[in-house]
Amino acid sequence: MMTERIVNFSAGPAVLPESALKQAQRDLFALPGVGMSVLEISHRSKTFTAIIEEAEANLRALLQIPDSYHILFLQGGATLQFSMVPMNFLRGAARPATYIQSGSWGTKAVKEAKREGDVVLAWDGKAQGFVRIPRSEELTIPHGTPYVHFTSNETIEGVEFDTEPAVGNVPLVCDASSDFMSRPLPVEEYALLYAGAQKNIGPAGATVVIARDEFLKQGAANLHTMLDYRVMAAQKSLYNTPPVFGIYMIMLVTRWLRDEIGGLENIEAQNRRKAALLYDVIDGSHGFYRGHADRESRSVMNVTWRLGDEALETAFLEEASRRKLSGLKGHRSVGGCRASIYNAMPVAGVETLAGYMTAFQQQHG
Amino acid sequence: MMTERIVNFSAGPAVLPESALKQAQRDLFALPGVGMSVLEISHRSKTFTAIIEEAEANLRALLQIPDSYHILFLQGGATLQFSMVPMNFLRGAARPATYIQSGSWGTKAVKEAKREGDVVLAWDGKAQGFVRIPRSEELTIPHGTPYVHFTSNETIEGVEFDTEPAVGNVPLVCDASSDFMSRPLPVEEYALLYAGAQKNIGPAGATVVIARDEFLKQGAANLHTMLDYRVMAAQKSLYNTPPVFGIYMIMLVTRWLRDEIGGLENIEAQNRRKAALLYDVIDGSHGFYRGHADRESRSVMNVTWRLGDEALETAFLEEASRRKLSGLKGHRSVGGCRASIYNAMPVAGVETLAGYMTAFQQQHG
Repeated sequence: MMTERIVNFSAGPAVLPESALKQAQRDLFALPGVGMSVLEISHRSKTFTAIIEEAEANLRALLQIPDSYHILFLQGGATLQFSMVPMNFLRGAARPATYIQSGSWGTKAVKEAKREGDVVLAWDGKAQGFVRIPRSEELTIPHGTPYVHFTSNETIEGVEFDTEPAVGNVPLVCDASSDFMSRPLPVEEYALLYAGAQKNIGPAGATVVIARDEFLKQGAANLHTMLDYRVMAAQKSLYNTPPVFGIYMIMLVTRWLRDEIGGLENIEAQNRRKAALLYDVIDGSHGFYRGHADRESRSVMNVTWRLGDEALETAFLEEASRRKLSGLKGHRSVGGCRASIYNAMPVAGVETLAGYMTAFQQQHG
Repeated sequence: MMTERIVNFSAGPAVLPESALKQAQRDLFALPGVGMSVLEISHRSKTFTAIIEEAEANLRALLQIPDSYHILFLQGGATLQFSMVPMNFLRGAARPATYIQSGSWGTKAVKEAKREGDVVLAWDGKAQGFVRIPRSEELTIPHGTPYVHFTSNETIEGVEFDTEPAVGNVPLVCDASSDFMSRPLPVEEYALLYAGAQKNIGPAGATVVIARDEFLKQGAANLHTMLDYRVMAAQKSLYNTPPVFGIYMIMLVTRWLRDEIGGLENIEAQNRRKAALLYDVIDGSHGFYRGHADRESRSVMNVTWRLGDEALETAFLEEASRRKLSGLKGHRSVGGCRASIYNAMPVAGVETLAGYMTAFQQQHG
């Protein structure tokens, strides 16, 4: 049976660094010197304490996270954060929360926030089909809003903020799921940011939350324990049994970023090189490939495009699959094609795709 | 470095079947015929669909779960279920929910329920130190209560229901985290039961919920999407990205139960044999070992006992650790010793512990 690896452009769960997978494979039956699988260790053990402390230390060093910020490892994905953010910071608030709606995920976040209180949209890209992110001067930030929420990268439409939206002194909250750790971030500009692990830093089932201590203190009272950030911060993510294996994988992936990649500036340069390979094919295709996003809003993580018609798209995807280029079908809600090229996607994988795209156009253009 | 396995009596995360670990290890770099790690596959892929369908089919066959019940794979552990149950079924109810409080975990469940409405205790074992479960005639089930919640096994105190409490026609809800799949269950007597995976069926980070369709329909309106059982049932646990690896491990562990153990009657017999080995040592020790639980309420999963004083307990635990018997320290809230002997703990491991206990008594008794 074939056990060699293919080129995986899935939007998430997504490709992971081979060295992290190899170490996890080694430890899966018995951690050296411990005599148990990483799946079997107690979350109160010294072994796991070292794992979660290294995961946190790696994140803190790579992102230069100030000491005044907590790093939490939670469950439920970004989708549960869509609810936890307004439960903690909109419930009982005197003014509406503010959301920048630049794609499908941000729209889902708004839906959950409305269960807790009023929401105003600082900007809404829906009528345009979510093809771009707003310019700073287009944002309307109401006075006294408890926070402004935005989605730094929208995986479905492939639009990404290249810098933080200008919101003045209002607490900034970010769903960073799909570009977290893909580039340096000025964490001190955020009140809270969260990311499901399954794009850039680990497997599905773990969520990282980075939050300013002073912001967490403003949370609503009498929240359910598992949905109260302050409890999770006070208990260092160990109020109950955490997603042990997911945290272990985050530790390995951040170690890879630190030791093999050499930090976030390096991974950002590599990510930009990969994205340019694909956007150059699209831009040079004379309309054979049509990018979904406006140029200045294009995502470095998720490249989205259409071909002439659905039959041609199907032919493109089928031939890609034969060439072991996997996961290129666009999200079912928008169709077309999408290449997710997160941190762990090798440059060589993107080069193979770019070469295939050029060849396919020569054959069918 | 030592990579051989030790005997792991941890209360959870806990020992897993070696054959399941070995297959997971094999698949961790690349699933045969797929070319991606199980950590990298899309939750919408055919590969994962086959995994989650087998996990569900194995559970359904082993427990003989009727078609009128949903099987959900969620996140957040039993602790999030402490909140989801009352959010769905106590919020807005005309009468208080009813809880049987027979240990530390049930007490935590009550705490979260009170955030959603009134709670009455059908029975409370706290004053006695949670040393036993109630007899049926001791239970007070108020008329019109939306549900009765109980904890089938309390891991900290080591007390376990050996049959369902008699609650009449009231919907029965159970935290079955620590004895789930350790014996056959009459699922049709339950409205809903839930279990964190990390005791008997998988790693931390996945939770199984089994619920009667008619009961779910009675849930409260306008719940947050991730906290609404009906959404998870309608979406077959795939509203958002599920804990892929946890579900894969549940598939492997239930396959082991089905193919290697031969079903729940067999594992129950093996579990009772293991528990008897330890309780026989305790009962024959003339008070050297003092069991925490009353005899008729003793847990088959978690055996709890004390020695004469803390110094002796420390000596016992230190010598056990040298003999590679790990995880025997009692929960920090009650002290003493505890052996968690879930499904995957081999009989040989318990025999080794029983032999050590006898030898330790001979030396120190």
